[in-house]
Amino acid sequence: MVSADSVAHAVAGQENLIGSLFDELRQNTTEGRGIRRDAYGKGENFAHRLLARTARSLGLDVECDGALNTYITLKGQDRSAPRLIVGSHLDSVPDGGNFDGAAGVISGLAALAALKSAGVQPNSDITAMAFRAEESIWFSTSLFGSRAAMGDVPTGILDNLKRADTGRTLGDHISECGGNLDELRDGKAYLQPKAIKAYLEIHIEQGPVLEAEGIPVGIVTGVRGNSRRTAAKVLGEYNHCGGVPQAYRHDAVVAASELVHRLDETWREWTKKNKDMAFTVGKMFTNPDRHALVNISGEVTFSLDIRSVEQKLLTELESLFESLCDQIAKEKGVRFDLGPAIRSPVGVVEPSILHHLVKGAESLKIHYRLMPSGASHDAAAFARAGVPMGMIFVRNKNGSHNPDEAMEIGNLMQAAKLMTWWLAENSRQ
Amino acid sequence: MVSADSVAHAVAGQENLIGSLFDELRQNTTEGRGIRRDAYGKGENFAHRLLARTARSLGLDVECDGALNTYITLKGQDRSAPRLIVGSHLDSVPDGGNFDGAAGVISGLAALAALKSAGVQPNSDITAMAFRAEESIWFSTSLFGSRAAMGDVPTGILDNLKRADTGRTLGDHISECGGNLDELRDGKAYLQPKAIKAYLEIHIEQGPVLEAEGIPVGIVTGVRGNSRRTAAKVLGEYNHCGGVPQAYRHDAVVAASELVHRLDETWREWTKKNKDMAFTVGKMFTNPDRHALVNISGEVTFSLDIRSVEQKLLTELESLFESLCDQIAKEKGVRFDLGPAIRSPVGVVEPSILHHLVKGAESLKIHYRLMPSGASHDAAAFARAGVPMGMIFVRNKNGSHNPDEAMEIGNLMQAAKLMTWWLAENSRQ
Repeated sequence: MVSADSVAHAVAGQENLIGSLFDELRQNTTEGRGIRRDAYGKGENFAHRLLARTARSLGLDVECDGALNTYITLKGQDRSAPRLIVGSHLDSVPDGGNFDGAAGVISGLAALAALKSAGVQPNSDITAMAFRAEESIWFSTSLFGSRAAMGDVPTGILDNLKRADTGRTLGDHISECGGNLDELRDGKAYLQPKAIKAYLEIHIEQGPVLEAEGIPVGIVTGVRGNSRRTAAKVLGEYNHCGGVPQAYRHDAVVAASELVHRLDETWREWTKKNKDMAFTVGKMFTNPDRHALVNISGEVTFSLDIRSVEQKLLTELESLFESLCDQIAKEKGVRFDLGPAIRSPVGVVEPSILHHLVKGAESLKIHYRLMPSGASHDAAAFARAGVPMGMIFVRNKNGSHNPDEAMEIGNLMQAAKLMTWWLAENSRQ
Repeated sequence: MVSADSVAHAVAGQENLIGSLFDELRQNTTEGRGIRRDAYGKGENFAHRLLARTARSLGLDVECDGALNTYITLKGQDRSAPRLIVGSHLDSVPDGGNFDGAAGVISGLAALAALKSAGVQPNSDITAMAFRAEESIWFSTSLFGSRAAMGDVPTGILDNLKRADTGRTLGDHISECGGNLDELRDGKAYLQPKAIKAYLEIHIEQGPVLEAEGIPVGIVTGVRGNSRRTAAKVLGEYNHCGGVPQAYRHDAVVAASELVHRLDETWREWTKKNKDMAFTVGKMFTNPDRHALVNISGEVTFSLDIRSVEQKLLTELESLFESLCDQIAKEKGVRFDLGPAIRSPVGVVEPSILHHLVKGAESLKIHYRLMPSGASHDAAAFARAGVPMGMIFVRNKNGSHNPDEAMEIGNLMQAAKLMTWWLAENSRQ
């Protein structure tokens, strides 16, 4: 087996390849100021062709499935042994950045190239994947490519979901790009969860923590699950603001604000107790047809997204939210109409992978911290399918989903080194 | 002088007149389900003609000024002595109720009729007034008629303010109804504040207090002044909701909610300390072009109306509001852009009038409570002009500015009795 030093050396040799792939992606998928790699469109297609062409030129095996995910494989000695998969997605949001998704695919390709150049002959196949259509903005569904790779294509999705900009169906877009709708409709799984030893994904951190703390790499402890309400309502009573004392009001703005205040307090308390959570009220508005400067508001609509990296905390948080609404309804004389909860379960990180990555970071002298993933990722689809999963975050500036996203290649090299080490360690019999 | 008993008897004799005037108003100014007495329009004109005609038939003197306010006068023995004025307005909001404003005019006319029938010969003139255009909804200015009666017509107002529904100017509407624009432009004051001994107004309570407590009459301790912000902003930072920990957020929704929460707490504390205040955030909304379920909000717009019946408390409240914004800006990493404050001063009730009304209610055995007026009224224009002012509220159900406004004539009779007693007491030399 190769040593940690020789892995580090082999990965360092891929820095030019990595840099030039990002440059080529940026040059060919920029529109206006930002990146546009539209799912099953021109930008995403370009990225898949670029990665496949480069992989072939490096002597790696390239395939695709009915959903047009790209599989780049360094063949193992026992091709029937459960394989290791690394990867991420190549689509971006409109007016996005160059690194969200692509960092995981390019570093996956580079890891394979490094292992090959170091003369590693893995026992099982190692596949670096590029997934399609991870971002929900295009077809109002997220993780489509990774789920489809495992045969998870819900009935009707191909014909009913339409791309936000073109208005054409998902099936139509896939067909046009050369995909195989019949296989998708049949639920054909190119990847059987049982035939996967583990899945590891590198992704830029979409939050500010690593940047603020000056740490290049985050080892992810779990992908937060969430529970969402798209348009909850607080219903109070409209009234002239002049003559109604506090005790007689049924003020929807006061009640909605009280709810946000208490959730904010809860977050502070939970953080002190080391209980992971987040909440976001992204939308909140009085009824524009009826609100007025001089009227107590009778109606507020709000959205809510609550998250936790632990399923039992998420369940606890959801109950707490509902009981806060009940309390406030009584205290303020209003009614809550929350609408249905849309839930996405926690993506559990396999503890042995987490521990192994920590060990690797320490032996490679990579500065890291443990952290939850706030946003969802393709890795969550693997975790949900029962595949042992891990994730590595890379320090990144200015958040994500915008043209100012700024990851430094030097930080990605640290993550790539850790991933390659992990692959080398795990590809032995 | 007449006794309290004979006043009570004389007022009781006006109940049919009062009832029939309300009926006639309702029959002739209903549109759809609600009342529509549009300022300087068909509904308000009808009401003024009805009151003037009725007054003349009762042998009272009727005049009007350049703004077409109606003056109904029981002549005094000394016509140059400072007169007593009672009254209110005859316009309503669109889709309004039958009693807001009209209760004060009709009870004023009834008081004069009662005094006349009781053979009272007042020393000074007693005038029952019907004001025009009190409601701000028509011309985006309030108390226009009462202010114009005292010569207070701000430059440009006649040409620049347009009625919300017709789009035609205030001057145009006044002319069409037969008013005298030249007199208004010259600032001619039909009423010189120094020539007014006192002003007393009966108005329905627009809040729920008297109804909830089962009390027919409120003696007003002052008309709340207010300070308003029409479109204040909280500016934070948009970001994806997944990966940003609490300490790194600049969440405009959390900051705006925190402000509302603290104002709500302040109100509770002030009430305990017997410090009068009210606050209303009638409008509050995230930016509809940028808000999203999965994004931390970077911008919230809100309106604010803060009130108090004491000028020094209002000033204190305004400072407190600004310092709360400063605190929250620091705590939550956001910025407040409050815009200009639009201020309306407190309408001070003359203490001797307040005490006299209390004495009257007790000797007439009228069940009353003391209370501030939350909303503004024509009485405030008199107070601001330096005229000694008082107000009496009448119990009313379902609030005001809506078709369900419900005052019982029996309760108005109690207020009319108190007012008539007060007029009789004050019209002596």
